Amino acid sequence: MSEAPSERTRLHRHPERGAYDRQTVGAILNEALICHVAWVTAEGEPRVIPTIHARDGDTLYIHGSQASRTLRAIRAGAQVCVESTILDGLVLARSTFNHSMNYRSVVVFGTPREVTDHDEMDRAQRILVEHVVPGRTADARIPNDEELKQTAIFAIDLDEASAKIRADGPHDPEDDLALPIWAGVIPLRLTVGEPEPDEHLVPDVEVPGYVTGYRRGGPTM
Amino acid sequence: MSEAPSERTRLHRHPERGAYDRQTVGAILNEALICHVAWVTAEGEPRVIPTIHARDGDTLYIHGSQASRTLRAIRAGAQVCVESTILDGLVLARSTFNHSMNYRSVVVFGTPREVTDHDEMDRAQRILVEHVVPGRTADARIPNDEELKQTAIFAIDLDEASAKIRADGPHDPEDDLALPIWAGVIPLRLTVGEPEPDEHLVPDVEVPGYVTGYRRGGPTM
Repeated sequence: MSEAPSERTRLHRHPERGAYDRQTVGAILNEALICHVAWVTAEGEPRVIPTIHARDGDTLYIHGSQASRTLRAIRAGAQVCVESTILDGLVLARSTFNHSMNYRSVVVFGTPREVTDHDEMDRAQRILVEHVVPGRTADARIPNDEELKQTAIFAIDLDEASAKIRADGPHDPEDDLALPIWAGVIPLRLTVGEPEPDEHLVPDVEVPGYVTGYRRGGPTM
Repeated sequence: MSEAPSERTRLHRHPERGAYDRQTVGAILNEALICHVAWVTAEGEPRVIPTIHARDGDTLYIHGSQASRTLRAIRAGAQVCVESTILDGLVLARSTFNHSMNYRSVVVFGTPREVTDHDEMDRAQRILVEHVVPGRTADARIPNDEELKQTAIFAIDLDEASAKIRADGPHDPEDDLALPIWAGVIPLRLTVGEPEPDEHLVPDVEVPGYVTGYRRGGPTM
């Protein structure tokens, strides 16, 4: 466990589950498919939407459409709080009170910077696609200028990030251990079904290896 | 598709994916294991945390610890925006630009009410456990008064809720259909591994049927 980079980043509840090092934070962001971006409207109201993200070293990219209200708000310099969570299991204790979940989550604070440089835009959109389906950018048609104009990408420094991890069995108090109640963990995994080809495929196009072999996950998968 | 109950609830981007009826919203909240609760701090900053939820008719319950900063903020009358998303698939179009995801998500706006009535508290905590592991409350030890005191539960009316659903193949423009690039959907599912019993189990405690038969999911599972 490393030091929290700022007070708002520091975990108060269950500090023993916290980590602040780039490797732990990065691995969770790499595995999670989506994140949840929260911001405050001009009227002072909270908003949160799911979106895809990708990490490039110490930068987190989030993606959207130029037409989205979220991105217009962010463009106006709004602070964001980004959270991403991977569920690894349901933890069944003897008492309902001590039920829990195993998870790996990340929270990032920052003020996003809009990506406008053509080269960074090109690189960031590739990284976003590769984050979701590694191998895909070598195959798919890359955006033309018209499409790039419709895309908005924001960059957030990973300076203020924290990870929180629970990976354990139930924590029952001593008194409960004698109860004749099953306790343990139901592991959860995000798994992949049979690929469903588009009906308009050109004949003889094979399913790529990165599709048939697609899997998500770290140590628990 | 029904009518949006309020302007902030109405979907602007891809309105064809929207639904506002209680049945659609309810089914997504029932299946999703966790939600993401966003609020605004006293300093005007956004925050978002993952937490468990459960639906009881037109009420959404969210759960936390009395010690949590989030719940202290909510207790002060903060508005919240709650979002929950189930990923159903990765949508690979011929162009990276048209890549998408199949998902079912819900957004709820409201000002949470703290549950203080003993009977509602008892009912809500059972519903929260049953939401995660149906059948569990008949087995597990129910909270004592001391434990109930440490639990905080908030209720949010589902008056202002919207659902957004994408469940389709890739949408490639006509010009791209002739490209010799595989396109289609990689389905995603949250699946369950072998239950892992706690090391301190009393001898001869059997794994309950609601654990061995645990599954999550609606039509895509």
